[in-house]
Amino acid sequence: MNPSMALTGVIPPVCTPLTPDGEVDVRSLLRLVDHLIAGGVHGLFVLGSTSEAAYLTDRQRALVVRTVAGHLGGRLPLIAGAIDMTTPRVLDHVTAVTEAGADAVVVTAPFYTRTHPAEIARHYRLVAAASPVPVVAYDIPVAVHTKLPAGLVLELAAEGVLAGIKDSSGDLAGFRRIVTGLHAHPGASGFSVLTGSEVLADAALAMGADGVVPGLANVDPHGYVRLYRLCRAGDRDRARAEQERLCALFELVGVGAAARMGQSSSGLGAFKAALGLRGIIDCPATAEPQVPLEPGEVERVGTFLAAAGLL
Amino acid sequence: MNPSMALTGVIPPVCTPLTPDGEVDVRSLLRLVDHLIAGGVHGLFVLGSTSEAAYLTDRQRALVVRTVAGHLGGRLPLIAGAIDMTTPRVLDHVTAVTEAGADAVVVTAPFYTRTHPAEIARHYRLVAAASPVPVVAYDIPVAVHTKLPAGLVLELAAEGVLAGIKDSSGDLAGFRRIVTGLHAHPGASGFSVLTGSEVLADAALAMGADGVVPGLANVDPHGYVRLYRLCRAGDRDRARAEQERLCALFELVGVGAAARMGQSSSGLGAFKAALGLRGIIDCPATAEPQVPLEPGEVERVGTFLAAAGLL
Amino acid sequence: MNPSMALTGVIPPVCTPLTPDGEVDVRSLLRLVDHLIAGGVHGLFVLGSTSEAAYLTDRQRALVVRTVAGHLGGRLPLIAGAIDMTTPRVLDHVTAVTEAGADAVVVTAPFYTRTHPAEIARHYRLVAAASPVPVVAYDIPVAVHTKLPAGLVLELAAEGVLAGIKDSSGDLAGFRRIVTGLHAHPGASGFSVLTGSEVLADAALAMGADGVVPGLANVDPHGYVRLYRLCRAGDRDRARAEQERLCALFELVGVGAAARMGQSSSGLGAFKAALGLRGIIDCPATAEPQVPLEPGEVERVGTFLAAAGLL
Amino acid sequence: MNPSMALTGVIPPVCTPLTPDGEVDVRSLLRLVDHLIAGGVHGLFVLGSTSEAAYLTDRQRALVVRTVAGHLGGRLPLIAGAIDMTTPRVLDHVTAVTEAGADAVVVTAPFYTRTHPAEIARHYRLVAAASPVPVVAYDIPVAVHTKLPAGLVLELAAEGVLAGIKDSSGDLAGFRRIVTGLHAHPGASGFSVLTGSEVLADAALAMGADGVVPGLANVDPHGYVRLYRLCRAGDRDRARAEQERLCALFELVGVGAAARMGQSSSGLGAFKAALGLRGIIDCPATAEPQVPLEPGEVERVGTFLAAAGLL
Repeated sequence: MNPSMALTGVIPPVCTPLTPDGEVDVRSLLRLVDHLIAGGVHGLFVLGSTSEAAYLTDRQRALVVRTVAGHLGGRLPLIAGAIDMTTPRVLDHVTAVTEAGADAVVVTAPFYTRTHPAEIARHYRLVAAASPVPVVAYDIPVAVHTKLPAGLVLELAAEGVLAGIKDSSGDLAGFRRIVTGLHAHPGASGFSVLTGSEVLADAALAMGADGVVPGLANVDPHGYVRLYRLCRAGDRDRARAEQERLCALFELVGVGAAARMGQSSSGLGAFKAALGLRGIIDCPATAEPQVPLEPGEVERVGTFLAAAGLL
Repeated sequence: MNPSMALTGVIPPVCTPLTPDGEVDVRSLLRLVDHLIAGGVHGLFVLGSTSEAAYLTDRQRALVVRTVAGHLGGRLPLIAGAIDMTTPRVLDHVTAVTEAGADAVVVTAPFYTRTHPAEIARHYRLVAAASPVPVVAYDIPVAVHTKLPAGLVLELAAEGVLAGIKDSSGDLAGFRRIVTGLHAHPGASGFSVLTGSEVLADAALAMGADGVVPGLANVDPHGYVRLYRLCRAGDRDRARAEQERLCALFELVGVGAAARMGQSSSGLGAFKAALGLRGIIDCPATAEPQVPLEPGEVERVGTFLAAAGLL
Repeated sequence: MNPSMALTGVIPPVCTPLTPDGEVDVRSLLRLVDHLIAGGVHGLFVLGSTSEAAYLTDRQRALVVRTVAGHLGGRLPLIAGAIDMTTPRVLDHVTAVTEAGADAVVVTAPFYTRTHPAEIARHYRLVAAASPVPVVAYDIPVAVHTKLPAGLVLELAAEGVLAGIKDSSGDLAGFRRIVTGLHAHPGASGFSVLTGSEVLADAALAMGADGVVPGLANVDPHGYVRLYRLCRAGDRDRARAEQERLCALFELVGVGAAARMGQSSSGLGAFKAALGLRGIIDCPATAEPQVPLEPGEVERVGTFLAAAGLL
Repeated sequence: MNPSMALTGVIPPVCTPLTPDGEVDVRSLLRLVDHLIAGGVHGLFVLGSTSEAAYLTDRQRALVVRTVAGHLGGRLPLIAGAIDMTTPRVLDHVTAVTEAGADAVVVTAPFYTRTHPAEIARHYRLVAAASPVPVVAYDIPVAVHTKLPAGLVLELAAEGVLAGIKDSSGDLAGFRRIVTGLHAHPGASGFSVLTGSEVLADAALAMGADGVVPGLANVDPHGYVRLYRLCRAGDRDRARAEQERLCALFELVGVGAAARMGQSSSGLGAFKAALGLRGIIDCPATAEPQVPLEPGEVERVGTFLAAAGLL
């Protein structure tokens, strides 16, 4: 990643539009990328959790990266998840996504297996040693059931193993320990601290975050770019108002009935329904075995869009 | 799986011997398979958690199944894990392992993503509909962070979606609900209930389990086969003595220092160290990023083997 | 506790009948005790989780112990929970229940506060040093969110700090480690290993448990006493049949709708509904803020009783 | 609580100084209260988690409230924890602490027992109906293992059941849902939203919190009062600098070796060691079964104090 490729600003985790039979819908994907660029975003993150990386086959994953990288043509930094259980499998994904054009890879702690801080450190060191591009840690305990310890992240940042962190832990106190801890690690200059939170973006930026990676930016990239600029300009009151508008919009992730589906089905289904209602993607299908939203639930997504001024 | 392929008896989850640089050690794998067959086991389970499936690349996974299937030549049923996060990715593994010769596939609940009972049911129905071989559910909450509800398992058994369950949950009460619940589901005849517990095998068999899938059977297949026969013969006192010998041996999984490594590193490292000490495999290496045992820890594995009469 | 007071056999955790306005219903409590004695039980455990100890005020707790102790008059051993968060508060309960007539106290790990094995050990040592009667450890992670490590229990048993353990963890593997570990600790002779499981009583006894403490024994003490005798006599087939009858009966704990109430409300509500339907207690009320069963749910309790031959 | 008693500003959860033999050290407690008042705090919270309420006997709890209430003489609002497992036991504490002089009570969700949102609502409604003073919800999942759902809190706020919430969940996203959700509930005017976070106080205030309840304010009340004023004045840059100084100081909670003690022992031990080093309390003892800090650990507390300019 060349210096102009610094990971700052709004870097949406790009949804992966699918056809009704579960294939990657390339045309919709390209429209979505154009929509995000038009919104002013500063980078793109493909094959993350919001991208349904956990559901895409290896072939589909490669197709997504190749499609987006080709379309971007270097205009914006492109980071890609290399989401798998352990080092050897992650390394295969690192090879695949970098060959397909990713500028950096995003890697979680080991999962499925019972792990340990010493093994997490070993994992990142091995991945970084083998990766041709920078490695960003992905802290997502809701998925991998391990929280990356702030001290470990700082240590790996200072060593140059990690180029940044995408924090989807919801633990803003731990996030702050990393942001402020970096002051004491001059060797970690250039390390990017990114929050995955939709609803705490202003707070994270106020405490020194470099950027935000909110899934909701698929639906409203302009809103997050506006929020980012207001925060950078120090206009905290308007930033808070914009953030609160986005918080209200984010409630759309709860439209799916908890008796009938899990939170991924509901949240990712709502993002895709919103993109469909806004005319950006053709089909709101989520990957199997997620449960589709029912018509009434999609209608409620529309109500949220309307309230946020997006319909 | 033809009728002679019923999943009963002792079906070890086969360790995957590795070379020092992390490749599958085919010669050691064949020796291990011969050792298990010589021990009298009734089937083999490859690409499970004990096999380090979470650490093997797709190429290595295929190599393992092809190697073992070719060597077995149909002498014993061969079941193979198709361990991945969600339906589309699992289906790719189902194709790969059945083409490589597996007689049945073993599939967990979705992981990494936040799931729901309705999605788990959908997952198994889709996998079973697409799989050319029977599907065995793998209940392993320590890995996937979801417990398969007994009621759901019984429902899928009655529908013919599932051909069996490998229960590595440690929850013997839930296990019993399945065993006894099957009495009320005549449609589920032939459904195999297998425990993954090393230390409750006798209890599981006493309550009606069809078989056992203990990782420790890599180290001492003769012991588990003896235990199985004693249980089937109703010789509970000698069964209990044999089980207690195996329980004492199983303590070897704790040799790795908790300050230095996780439980996978310690447990799988100890199994492989024991196989090395017994001369069955060439190299006790575990896959990255697991932490290797230190010499003193390997020595303690030897002490356990000696106490169990295996050195 | 004199030697004749050994903790073996069936020791029900006695429900605490309440009046409609939440007072201890002493007459119903005495009838329940008589019902249990008539069933042939070997001891009584008051102020445990099944007794709603977490809901009883200190005054009510003392009343329960005094009532039962007075009625028993030493005919059976009476153990009492001293359930509270930490050492100083537990010690107050130890004083209260022993003054009221308890022969032994049952004590959990610290809860509410974040604890540590070293603190759990310290807790039990301090409680035992101050208690005039033997101390039984209560392993109930579902309530206190800490599992008592088997090694720690064995250490405290060998030291004479603990006189026994009531295991409500559901972890039969850990239970077995204690049972078999005691063989290596001759200093721990007399230590009682008791399971709280309704559905694994036969398995626990087969592996060497001293007794069982099943909440369901309130409803069917004769059944558990029969089961205990069959296990002791080595009549495993009839024991299993009796256990399976009790397993089927135990499903009554699920009658309460999960959308409307938690598992305590449902389970304790069902026990009390069953005692009401059997004419043993006057009022099936559970303590606040538990949600009462609805008439249709109580009716389903009756169906379970009828199927088990208890109506 | 009269209107002048609104819960805003800095309301420290007051440590409970103990003598070496575990008694409440009344003189030290009074000195601590004077220290806090001198620091400019706006209220006091006794018998919370930081106060070791989980460790204090009922007699000690009453002594603490009576001592502090008597000393305050109404100068500041005094809120008191009524920490116990369920409604009937909590009600006894509500009576005790209000008789001793508390202006409001702080109540958690039920714990020890398995609970349910419907039961939590019932619990708060019953407590509020019986309490002579306002009820503040205490959201502390690390202790009670249940997170108060934001929707439920808003509902109870709108009904007038709850007068406020002390959020020690670490979940700032949920906190924000309450703060912004109140805008839509005019009936909830006067409801106080307080964060228990030491390190996110500035962020919480920026999003609209009414006040902060940080344990660290025992050690440095002046710092938190300064922070609160800077936040209220909109001087975000100096607020952030002050917050970062307090964040660095807060690291003292980690001085205790994790191999030897739990996080309560370490954190509360460090607070008390700091109060001892600053000459405010006589003895840094924590209640049993917490493990005391070793001299080297206390020395490290001193280093943190020095770095923060407090020695």
